[in-house]
Amino acid sequence: MKVTILRENKIRKCVNMNKEAVDAVSLGFTRLVEGKVSLPPIIRVDVEANQGEVDIKTAYIEGLDHFAIKIASGFFGNPSIGLPYGSGMMVLMSAKTGFLEAVLLDNGYLTDLRTGIAGAIAAKHLAPTQITTAGVIGSGVQARYQIRGLRLVRDFQRLMVYGIIPDEVERYASEMTQELGVEVTISDSPEEVFRQSQFVATTTPTREPYAKAAWLHAGMHITAMGADAEHKQELFADVLGKADLIVCDSKSQCFRLGELHHALKAGVLSEDSDITEIGELTAGSKTGRQNDQEITICDLTGVGVQDTTIAVLTYQKAISRGLGTSFEV
Amino acid sequence: MKVTILRENKIRKCVNMNKEAVDAVSLGFTRLVEGKVSLPPIIRVDVEANQGEVDIKTAYIEGLDHFAIKIASGFFGNPSIGLPYGSGMMVLMSAKTGFLEAVLLDNGYLTDLRTGIAGAIAAKHLAPTQITTAGVIGSGVQARYQIRGLRLVRDFQRLMVYGIIPDEVERYASEMTQELGVEVTISDSPEEVFRQSQFVATTTPTREPYAKAAWLHAGMHITAMGADAEHKQELFADVLGKADLIVCDSKSQCFRLGELHHALKAGVLSEDSDITEIGELTAGSKTGRQNDQEITICDLTGVGVQDTTIAVLTYQKAISRGLGTSFEV
Repeated sequence: MKVTILRENKIRKCVNMNKEAVDAVSLGFTRLVEGKVSLPPIIRVDVEANQGEVDIKTAYIEGLDHFAIKIASGFFGNPSIGLPYGSGMMVLMSAKTGFLEAVLLDNGYLTDLRTGIAGAIAAKHLAPTQITTAGVIGSGVQARYQIRGLRLVRDFQRLMVYGIIPDEVERYASEMTQELGVEVTISDSPEEVFRQSQFVATTTPTREPYAKAAWLHAGMHITAMGADAEHKQELFADVLGKADLIVCDSKSQCFRLGELHHALKAGVLSEDSDITEIGELTAGSKTGRQNDQEITICDLTGVGVQDTTIAVLTYQKAISRGLGTSFEV
Repeated sequence: MKVTILRENKIRKCVNMNKEAVDAVSLGFTRLVEGKVSLPPIIRVDVEANQGEVDIKTAYIEGLDHFAIKIASGFFGNPSIGLPYGSGMMVLMSAKTGFLEAVLLDNGYLTDLRTGIAGAIAAKHLAPTQITTAGVIGSGVQARYQIRGLRLVRDFQRLMVYGIIPDEVERYASEMTQELGVEVTISDSPEEVFRQSQFVATTTPTREPYAKAAWLHAGMHITAMGADAEHKQELFADVLGKADLIVCDSKSQCFRLGELHHALKAGVLSEDSDITEIGELTAGSKTGRQNDQEITICDLTGVGVQDTTIAVLTYQKAISRGLGTSFEV
């Protein structure tokens, strides 16, 4: 029996923001709405003494030979000792035998990527076909990945960014100008970003909503991916009330953790509201944007099927290229 | 940042059934009753297509620098393709930073060992001081480990075994005779084992209880470790009713999964019954057996603190001996 260990530098050579990865993750969302996924609740371990938490996510998808168990952590004290706040890895199991097949030491790269890919899928089905200005709130890792995801499915001439840490925003603008070859404008208010952009990704971990319903305009799309826990919220609840089409990655999860959770509590939405799951778009059982006047919003909280599909693709690529270190066990 | 990979052959050199390992696991049980453990519910992934399941257990214990995430599986089809039914591994995380520290590719050895160690702790506090005949029902891995655990804390002159697969029972008798240097008798009924033995370990995965209250006698101890899921049961419910002292590894878990679960349903026990947790014995806040006439029963279902403590001990030993393969990540 062999186990393969894959390190981050090799993993980055295997998978990227491209059509193949988008197709792989799309299949996961499709299987989810088809009821062909075993998706246990997330395990969360609190390490209060060190202000840390570790989350464990997993999903088995019928028809795939492997499934992933993802272990991701966040420890508040890390930056003060020169370490990144978060960390992550994936364990790949055989769905035929239950044996360990591979350990992907990706340091969170695969999570960043699969989160950006969900954004790409949302943008593909929901963003207007013509985008002059794309907007992003926040200047961290997902401010990059959500825009990379958009770029895969739509052209745009300009990127407008708002963030609260000036140095980070400057670095974001300079890096993304180089990467995308488009003009990147730094805005001094989220309102301007919303009013000027046909597409906006909100990517901040704020607990205080800032995005107002008055800023919305016909034809725009918003992907809100910052809120992935009960206490996080970027959009005021009435923003959801102005959408012609609301999409999310998992209704049950978004009603518990995402923007939908707050809209539900505020009475803007009910459990019976007409909300589409991404998997219905990838499966083709529902359509996304229907015209250039609709306002669409997609709420992303992150689902285990994204982890399993991206891990399986990574492993397939690594094996076919002979990457990784194998152990006889 | 370094990650250490430890394979089974190295792990077996680090930890064994001995006092040091018993002390390590005892500390876990003590911390559990002291409320110093973060113990999330078990994750279970069902892979129905292949009649398989994967369980994920974890526990963070205050004061330890690391904690384990255990991934264990059982796939019914494995033996037909020449593979063992079950498999297991542990991932060791830093409780300081949340970073991955080590992967223990133990193939289930550490689970077997820590389960036997819980048996040793139970026997230490509950078995009568004088044992002429020790008994065991079943002839698999835990029929070995429970007796190894007993042997660590009590002498006995004879071992009596009952099992349903003749070849396996023969092999068990021959192996254990050699290992323990005591006479091993094969019995043709569980009743005889119960009636003749001052200590009995029940280690079968049966869904049909077989052990009857009428077989119990003054001064005996029973460790029941086969039932670790809702549908498994070895002891008829009224067996529990005859015990002077009932102990278990975790009340909440045994009321859901173990023998206590069935006794509760049958009305033999209630949630308010006087039941001791092993951690109360290791902490010294309660005493175990008080005289040579009591009937004592211990129900074991397996708790995450056992996994974390044995994994941490293994890692400490491996590091101090320079064992394992390190990866810079």
